[in-house]
Amino acid sequence: MPTVPLLPDDDASPAARAVFDDIRAKRNTDYVNNFWRALANDPPLLQATWERLQQVMAPGALDPLVKELIYVAVSVANGCDYCVHSHTAAARARGMTDAMHGELLAVIAMASQTNALATALQIETDARFKA
Amino acid sequence: MPTVPLLPDDDASPAARAVFDDIRAKRNTDYVNNFWRALANDPPLLQATWERLQQVMAPGALDPLVKELIYVAVSVANGCDYCVHSHTAAARARGMTDAMHGELLAVIAMASQTNALATALQIETDARFKA
Amino acid sequence: MPTVPLLPDDDASPAARAVFDDIRAKRNTDYVNNFWRALANDPPLLQATWERLQQVMAPGALDPLVKELIYVAVSVANGCDYCVHSHTAAARARGMTDAMHGELLAVIAMASQTNALATALQIETDARFKA
Amino acid sequence: MPTVPLLPDDDASPAARAVFDDIRAKRNTDYVNNFWRALANDPPLLQATWERLQQVMAPGALDPLVKELIYVAVSVANGCDYCVHSHTAAARARGMTDAMHGELLAVIAMASQTNALATALQIETDARFKA
Amino acid sequence: MPTVPLLPDDDASPAARAVFDDIRAKRNTDYVNNFWRALANDPPLLQATWERLQQVMAPGALDPLVKELIYVAVSVANGCDYCVHSHTAAARARGMTDAMHGELLAVIAMASQTNALATALQIETDARFKA
Amino acid sequence: MPTVPLLPDDDASPAARAVFDDIRAKRNTDYVNNFWRALANDPPLLQATWERLQQVMAPGALDPLVKELIYVAVSVANGCDYCVHSHTAAARARGMTDAMHGELLAVIAMASQTNALATALQIETDARFKA
Repeated sequence: MPTVPLLPDDDASPAARAVFDDIRAKRNTDYVNNFWRALANDPPLLQATWERLQQVMAPGALDPLVKELIYVAVSVANGCDYCVHSHTAAARARGMTDAMHGELLAVIAMASQTNALATALQIETDARFKA
Repeated sequence: MPTVPLLPDDDASPAARAVFDDIRAKRNTDYVNNFWRALANDPPLLQATWERLQQVMAPGALDPLVKELIYVAVSVANGCDYCVHSHTAAARARGMTDAMHGELLAVIAMASQTNALATALQIETDARFKA
Repeated sequence: MPTVPLLPDDDASPAARAVFDDIRAKRNTDYVNNFWRALANDPPLLQATWERLQQVMAPGALDPLVKELIYVAVSVANGCDYCVHSHTAAARARGMTDAMHGELLAVIAMASQTNALATALQIETDARFKA
Repeated sequence: MPTVPLLPDDDASPAARAVFDDIRAKRNTDYVNNFWRALANDPPLLQATWERLQQVMAPGALDPLVKELIYVAVSVANGCDYCVHSHTAAARARGMTDAMHGELLAVIAMASQTNALATALQIETDARFKA
Repeated sequence: MPTVPLLPDDDASPAARAVFDDIRAKRNTDYVNNFWRALANDPPLLQATWERLQQVMAPGALDPLVKELIYVAVSVANGCDYCVHSHTAAARARGMTDAMHGELLAVIAMASQTNALATALQIETDARFKA
Repeated sequence: MPTVPLLPDDDASPAARAVFDDIRAKRNTDYVNNFWRALANDPPLLQATWERLQQVMAPGALDPLVKELIYVAVSVANGCDYCVHSHTAAARARGMTDAMHGELLAVIAMASQTNALATALQIETDARFKA
């Protein structure tokens, strides 16, 4: 149960409805997922989040699949269940294979353990890593 | 100041020395960074970490640069200063450009904010994200 | 399913029962929520937590609603589902409007992303922020 | 040492310079802090972050001091040293007294401990907290 | 719902099956828990994780119960629901009493709050703690 | 630089001075470490923290060294540099050997990686772990 109602189209404000319609058009689907229906309780937050997401995840120096892998990695480290599910699905939709998923998990696990070790050891950064 | 001494070659056990030598050979450099010199206080932990790191970061379904980007992302989310420095440097050594770095940061920032929003809203996972 | 039983009144020790009764009296309700029923398995921990909570959340230099907003923010950042639910409800009971909730979420999201950016960039603190 | 150079005005692109100028004008100071000088390496990220920050932190249903207290709380929970320093300073500039700071710390500490307890106990959310 | 299928024995590869069999033999039970059935989608990751877990959790300078208590503590701080459940159960199986569980929770809660306070206060490490 | 002054004895209030004196008496040392000198800016918070710490860390069902190991583990997972240093030193003072430290680190690293894997895989808790 979310902490706010998930707004169906009929309960969304015109501003929120416009974002729903844009999501449908850009994603070429009729489905608007729960994240946006929850954010619709605050239309300016919904709009700002949707606009920024499109800018950030667009193809650029990094391709969209790589961006989704990074998104999953951050979501795992932050422990966001919803985001792990939604962005693992998004990565698959963009071409992540089972082998890629396995390697993604292995890198996340490796980083998590060396992060913990470096923090436990309070290691000072080598001068050559700086700049 | 670390919580253990950073062992110079002369103070490392033969088992730890062997790992230092392998690091030098595999990385084609004489430099052994602080992380390994700290871990050398526990040679089995040093050895297990170095062995696993090589397996995980080797080229596979994901290329080594992509793996380094994911490593940086996890290190940022976990707040490991040493790891952010060392793996940002490693990503640059593997070809990360300034533009790629900028996009990496933007994705990390985006994921961090939507992770927080999804957690604050306690959004239930859409059935279609499950499989 | 919690990792300990949620103790009904009849299974609680006299010390735990006394805390339940105090919660009922102070909150003017017959309902004792699950958090306290779980803590009741360790009466001294239950008592210490309840006593300290009352001291900390009492009106002072900050009013109770502001304290609840801060509580929600910390709970989101720490990813505590139970706490996000219970303290969002508590904030509403103390007067948090939908508009305030929306702004709370926006600040949490903003801080989450700049936290990630500052960590990724390993920015040194400006001298003027220190004192 | 940051992972990117802190750009002085002369090395910033025109787009980044324009943001620096806007920061100076809006904050009525000549000082541009390190966070923005680091972000200036990626002008679109700098611009998007600065624009969004102004929208989010503007007076609204919550006053700017309350927003800064929430910002500090999230920054503490996320372990961002730079952000804790900069937003504690910002909160003081907006009127946070020593007494308010003490209570902010007490609420953050209280939430941190009950977050840990609720997670350790895996407590199920009471039906009445949902809506 | 996990992000990968939980593989029953019949769907697991021979390499994964071999790990399942080893888990059964070492733990003296026919039950293979979900964690391993999910990892079985990537047999090398399954194998590496199972091998390392046995090495790390074996009796040594610390006894296995103490190791399980530490495991629970880390899992709580990282907010891993599955791990909190599985390692609390493992600790009980190794002899953790209710009184020990209560004290474990109290220490986790205490550390969580002083961690937050030290971060909020940005306290510099005393010279005498370094070595 | 902390976000508050570290109060020397002469600047501490009588209530804070009394806590300093109690710390000195109980620890049998003249040294009062920075954590307490920072907290002294808010005497009730100082007093509550010191009182609770003594209760929690006293010998009980778990011995004080085990409690310190748990404290270090939580501090590492929460990324608190000060706390990692101070509680690693405290654990050593209570008898933690180099071998114990090495195993503590190995367990923390192991838990960190399986925490990440379980979260990435969104594994459902096995019925048998519940009770």
